[in-house]
Amino acid sequence: MSNFSAPELIVTKRDKGELSTEQINWLIANYTAGLVADEQMSAMAMAILLNGMSRREIKDLTLAMIASGERLSYEGLGAPTADKHSTGGVGDKITLPLAPLVAVFGVAVPQLSGRGLGHTGGTLDKLESIKGWRAQISNQEFHQQLADVGAVICAAGSGLAPADRKLYSLRDVTGTVEAIPLIASSIMSKKIAEGTSSLVLDVKVGSGAFMKNIERARELATVMVQLGQDAGVNTSALLTDMSTPLGLEIGNALEVKESLEVLAGGGPADVVEITIELAQEMLRLAGKGDVDVAAALKDGRAMDKWRQMISAQGGDPDAALPEAREHHVVTAPASGYLSQLDALQVGTASWRLGAGRARKEDDVQFGAGITLHAQQGQKVEAGAPLMTLHTDEPERFDRALEALEGSFKIEPSATERKIVLERIK
Amino acid sequence: MSNFSAPELIVTKRDKGELSTEQINWLIANYTAGLVADEQMSAMAMAILLNGMSRREIKDLTLAMIASGERLSYEGLGAPTADKHSTGGVGDKITLPLAPLVAVFGVAVPQLSGRGLGHTGGTLDKLESIKGWRAQISNQEFHQQLADVGAVICAAGSGLAPADRKLYSLRDVTGTVEAIPLIASSIMSKKIAEGTSSLVLDVKVGSGAFMKNIERARELATVMVQLGQDAGVNTSALLTDMSTPLGLEIGNALEVKESLEVLAGGGPADVVEITIELAQEMLRLAGKGDVDVAAALKDGRAMDKWRQMISAQGGDPDAALPEAREHHVVTAPASGYLSQLDALQVGTASWRLGAGRARKEDDVQFGAGITLHAQQGQKVEAGAPLMTLHTDEPERFDRALEALEGSFKIEPSATERKIVLERIK
Repeated sequence: MSNFSAPELIVTKRDKGELSTEQINWLIANYTAGLVADEQMSAMAMAILLNGMSRREIKDLTLAMIASGERLSYEGLGAPTADKHSTGGVGDKITLPLAPLVAVFGVAVPQLSGRGLGHTGGTLDKLESIKGWRAQISNQEFHQQLADVGAVICAAGSGLAPADRKLYSLRDVTGTVEAIPLIASSIMSKKIAEGTSSLVLDVKVGSGAFMKNIERARELATVMVQLGQDAGVNTSALLTDMSTPLGLEIGNALEVKESLEVLAGGGPADVVEITIELAQEMLRLAGKGDVDVAAALKDGRAMDKWRQMISAQGGDPDAALPEAREHHVVTAPASGYLSQLDALQVGTASWRLGAGRARKEDDVQFGAGITLHAQQGQKVEAGAPLMTLHTDEPERFDRALEALEGSFKIEPSATERKIVLERIK
Repeated sequence: MSNFSAPELIVTKRDKGELSTEQINWLIANYTAGLVADEQMSAMAMAILLNGMSRREIKDLTLAMIASGERLSYEGLGAPTADKHSTGGVGDKITLPLAPLVAVFGVAVPQLSGRGLGHTGGTLDKLESIKGWRAQISNQEFHQQLADVGAVICAAGSGLAPADRKLYSLRDVTGTVEAIPLIASSIMSKKIAEGTSSLVLDVKVGSGAFMKNIERARELATVMVQLGQDAGVNTSALLTDMSTPLGLEIGNALEVKESLEVLAGGGPADVVEITIELAQEMLRLAGKGDVDVAAALKDGRAMDKWRQMISAQGGDPDAALPEAREHHVVTAPASGYLSQLDALQVGTASWRLGAGRARKEDDVQFGAGITLHAQQGQKVEAGAPLMTLHTDEPERFDRALEALEGSFKIEPSATERKIVLERIK
């Protein structure tokens, strides 16, 4: 590998130049090895954030991060694979019904997931509210379950894209999280290293999402779809609304409960719509676009697959879900339509009730969270319950209610809510 | 002091916001104390480089760096003080004749100087070629000499602006040297902490200088003059040419020799011109604008002051200067006018001959360097000596000659050279 110097590469990007493939490979390999210092990489990250990267540079960066670790492969599985990644939102439990639903149609879903940090929940935290369920499984168990059941949701091993892990921690403390080339390469390096052959991205837009406006979300989605295609993964993206929470339940066990309703053929319309849309897209990319997805929710096939998936990882699908000990009901101050219900504020309140963690080391309360009695756009009556707050520790109610101040509006009318905003292929 | 967070401040600057006085004070105090990490400060430095700083922010940054250390004061000296700072160039020995020349007129010159790194020489390295001369003197010796002789050139103590020292080392390895707010605050924090009441900046422009074009040099000079004025220091700046070396001698002892010629009333016209211009400007700022500066060079008063200044720091003004053991002469390949002679290439060649150092720990060769037999704009004869290379180690000639390849042009005519390009008050 050629011998570059870190300051030379930083200056190139600082002066709006393009880094060569060799330079990017050198940078990531040496950063992973500790030969490029954190203070050099953070200056580089800031230069990338402010000056951008070309499509080729982003691709090279992603490939270099993949090359820093191991790469999974499903050769010999005998089934196509499809994966979904959401950029994270409030009440976003879609992975739970989606993975078994897609597996029903013979497309394997290897879904490596994470834990929640901040106001957005994590898929693993939600599933851990099921008695006995294990997020950590061995490589062998993973491949076996994928072959037997066709769906696995588990923790990503530390061997995938270690450069990304190191860079992400650095970005977190240096004000360089919000760089599209870095967000895109971080997400896609892990997804590509996971080895899936098709991938659908659910890019959330709105107050509760990472991307607050549609232009930035579209840019991120486009970059990631290009990246996937450049790496030989069939990739497409949906931009979906995250200005208001998804569904009626926010919190770990609460979201599992709502997912079970969807798997039983019921559940809130928005959750069902987005689950079906994403399943259709995953199946289409995997070459099975002509199946009746909704039927598999109605006739119990998705629920059967769910039960197999949970059992395979030690979970008891029949065990009662944890419930919080304390409750507080917020009532509607007036009659009318719920014209606004802010995702970030509801997410923050749920977090403060104990559903989320402030630091990586913290535990979550499985029963904590918020149940909405009305969604944005729906009619409410003065004095009727608007939302119920759940927690094990009643002293948490005050700060949660503080977060909810001004979070909703009741007006004489409300505009219709659109869930899927755009598609990027 | 309020409690901010480093990422919050970085994000503010990243998003083109302005940092408050309190935020800047917090940042520099905590960086000096090691509570803001290097990787955070380097991301901040890159954001400043790319997004700039307002005049108020630069002033606050400078004051915060001054506040990180001690500040000298000349109360009770009974004489006005004036200082000069050059941004550094090739053959720039002006401080040597200038300090005693200004002191002749009752204006005290406390000149805290540095060592050379890279292709530009350092004032202390030059003076150390004088037998017995000491760069390190105590605080008491410093004040005594300033009172007795009126001129001191010595090493800056480590107590002045320690935040700048730390930040400068960081910028050096993170591609963030070339930020005007950071260059200006670095230079001015040290100069203001030195406590001088007037200051003339010699901002070099051209290949051998830090600022390669006049627009950037003008911007830097303007920011520094504003900074000085905001801090109550009478400040002005000259922009001077550094596209070609200053004078005929480049190298430590060689430049002392040329300075002695100037102090004896001779020397190359460009060195004399810039010495007189800077002396007049320093004296004008110190309230003594009506004196005949040139006369003090002709009649030996400046030379007498020089001898006192050198002797006071243990130097023998009559000792022979070191000479290099080996020489190599470059002759003119054609007759005509020397229309170009590149400062950076000559500076690099001199450095490679041993006059400069590659790392802070290296020693310099006092006798090494280059003697020019013609300056840019002068007539040369084919076969006549153009420059003489001096070194103690003949194996250095090859790489020096390599640096000189294409460094000069001989043409039928040459345009006149302008030394002082602009004045900024």
